[in-house]
Amino acid sequence: MKQKIETIAKNAKAASRKMATVSTREKNAVLARMGEMLVERSAYLMYENKKDLEKGREKGLSTAMIDRLRIDDKGIQKMVEGINVVIGLPDPVGEIINMKRLPNGLQIGRIRTPLGVIGIIYESRPNVTVDAASLCLKSGNAVILRGGSEAIHSNIALAKALKEAVDACEFPEHAVQLIDITDRQAVYEMLKMDAYIDLIIPRGGHELIRNVVENSTIPVIKHDKGLCHVYVDKDADLAMAEKVAFNAKVQRPSVCNAMETLLVHRGVAGEFLPGMVKRFQEAGVEIRGCKAAKAICPDIKDAKEEDWDTEYLDLILSVKVVEDVEAAIEHITRYGSMLSESVITNNYNTSWKFIREVDAASVYVNASTRFTDGGEYGMGAEMGISTQKLHCRGPMGLEELTSAKYIGFGDGHIRT
Amino acid sequence: MKQKIETIAKNAKAASRKMATVSTREKNAVLARMGEMLVERSAYLMYENKKDLEKGREKGLSTAMIDRLRIDDKGIQKMVEGINVVIGLPDPVGEIINMKRLPNGLQIGRIRTPLGVIGIIYESRPNVTVDAASLCLKSGNAVILRGGSEAIHSNIALAKALKEAVDACEFPEHAVQLIDITDRQAVYEMLKMDAYIDLIIPRGGHELIRNVVENSTIPVIKHDKGLCHVYVDKDADLAMAEKVAFNAKVQRPSVCNAMETLLVHRGVAGEFLPGMVKRFQEAGVEIRGCKAAKAICPDIKDAKEEDWDTEYLDLILSVKVVEDVEAAIEHITRYGSMLSESVITNNYNTSWKFIREVDAASVYVNASTRFTDGGEYGMGAEMGISTQKLHCRGPMGLEELTSAKYIGFGDGHIRT
Repeated sequence: MKQKIETIAKNAKAASRKMATVSTREKNAVLARMGEMLVERSAYLMYENKKDLEKGREKGLSTAMIDRLRIDDKGIQKMVEGINVVIGLPDPVGEIINMKRLPNGLQIGRIRTPLGVIGIIYESRPNVTVDAASLCLKSGNAVILRGGSEAIHSNIALAKALKEAVDACEFPEHAVQLIDITDRQAVYEMLKMDAYIDLIIPRGGHELIRNVVENSTIPVIKHDKGLCHVYVDKDADLAMAEKVAFNAKVQRPSVCNAMETLLVHRGVAGEFLPGMVKRFQEAGVEIRGCKAAKAICPDIKDAKEEDWDTEYLDLILSVKVVEDVEAAIEHITRYGSMLSESVITNNYNTSWKFIREVDAASVYVNASTRFTDGGEYGMGAEMGISTQKLHCRGPMGLEELTSAKYIGFGDGHIRT
Repeated sequence: MKQKIETIAKNAKAASRKMATVSTREKNAVLARMGEMLVERSAYLMYENKKDLEKGREKGLSTAMIDRLRIDDKGIQKMVEGINVVIGLPDPVGEIINMKRLPNGLQIGRIRTPLGVIGIIYESRPNVTVDAASLCLKSGNAVILRGGSEAIHSNIALAKALKEAVDACEFPEHAVQLIDITDRQAVYEMLKMDAYIDLIIPRGGHELIRNVVENSTIPVIKHDKGLCHVYVDKDADLAMAEKVAFNAKVQRPSVCNAMETLLVHRGVAGEFLPGMVKRFQEAGVEIRGCKAAKAICPDIKDAKEEDWDTEYLDLILSVKVVEDVEAAIEHITRYGSMLSESVITNNYNTSWKFIREVDAASVYVNASTRFTDGGEYGMGAEMGISTQKLHCRGPMGLEELTSAKYIGFGDGHIRT
């Protein structure tokens, strides 16, 4: 198996060298062909997808999981639309930045280049196969895809369609490759290929990510869980606070940037919580509160210590009354996953304190945590959301899939 | 031991939280005090350093190694000067970049933040202790230093002086910590502290770096070897080529951005090589050439296959005659360490081909490979040179020791 993975990795490296100098026009042509290919092969894609769906049902996957796995006409249309968005995005490769002339006359700057070979390890949703491939290709990177076993037939079929487009356009043939071995050993082999793979992006549950971080000799950009908070300050516009907190929890509770814990300043808790809790309860949200919150709203459940530490991804919310903004920041620092955090306040000093001291990928004043998203940020599409500080933090778009090398133009410059 | 390392890492994390919001003025005050402290404690520093020097001599270290280990008045003065340069550099923390207003009115952008806790694992030269500490401190990061056993007494003494300055200024007390355990197990424990340490920078030989990459669960920025080339094109100004190639090899052969292999287009090899080789030989450089080079200069040695792959760091140079720029790029891609590469040409197309296709941290036209250096690039000081593509490539200055988080200012924005 090691040999097979090594061959894939080596071929990807060779393809990436060619891809680094391909024009934007050529890359867009392949992307357009990929979109067409997905439509042309839609019957085949759905036929293969059925195998995964059936196996999923046999294994007793939840309806939600089955839904995420399903490829139908609408799903294919969405994938094609995603590709079209990527076609419309500016190509980051070749952009020259910070070009300046040194005192000795040497002109130096940096030019954006592809990273090289990107390995993506993901679970469940087969549309990631298409999204990741199109973003990597547009940014000039070769990609090695390793989806989960539950979507293996779908992923193989999708990768085949993409490969047909690559071949039809006479693009480097190993630009997009799928590892079709479901044995987990394939992942471990992949993670040691630092001679050929430049970056690993794991997307999935905590166990998957931990496994990758612990075993990879290749740089990793983690896409970890989201345990996000909204803090309603004593100087908040309480009507705004209710609107934003409701949106952060209810608009789409299953995603990583949804709120899991609501923090409320004790000075406004009595006024704010009853109406807020009622609105949540009417929307079917189960509330688990601290003692102070329960004293105000006796009909809510008791929050246990583990509630502050739990990413529900569901219509459940923990509520805590805090002393002040310091206590809110302390709670967030202790329990938060540092993905998306928001303060509701009209106090100038509190707003900047929160912005500066909350060490999360995205920090907001008077806005929903739900905005932490490549699409919302105008990136057009995203590769995921980085929960680490190195290389990039927050939503990853095309630019985040590039590196920048220094270039220098001299006329015989030597060091003295 | 695990517990001791964990305590150091935890304390560093706590210090880093405080350091993230400290003003530039306060950081500069600590740095200034550090410089003063080094001068005040110079007798003690040299006394402790003598222990390392004696042990080094007993162990039979080379004169060059002993020189790198030595701390004398001049060395202390240089460290203080280095600190003063860092004081003069702009503080990257707090810079807000790419602030824009989304169509919905939400104002988003990014603000530079410290990375958090930086671990540095280095060998030999004790001045790294001071350089690294001052750069990390200025960029708001807590630092954990782990120097080599050969400089342990010097490093403990230096760290003690730095700590005195930190305490005198009432700065977070664990801002600068040294791991004083010489057992290698301490490094392995450190590399697993991903809950507390945000970045590991290994500086040293290939074995050290490999060890770190293979065992770290913390993101790593490698500072690997340098195997650099100058390619003299058929359209080169040969007088310029001779000047630049000579500088790249001879000015300081022991450093990573010195040239190790000279590539010459076959069309100009006959005219160029005899004079060039003579000049190198007069400067005491041993030349090892390919067959074609030997046919032109019969008095040079034969290059073996391993010569193309060797970082001499010495007055030795391998010379290869190549067919054209493609062959030069192919050779560089195959054997180069992708640190610093240069083409000498007056041909417009060749210059851009080389710039675009050579995938190195720094690529030059008509300039010496020796320019790849933070000081030369105007960074004032450098943490080392990254030889990987993620986060940063090439010389690392203060900005490279930061991350950037998204910030958003709304007025009740919710997602729909």
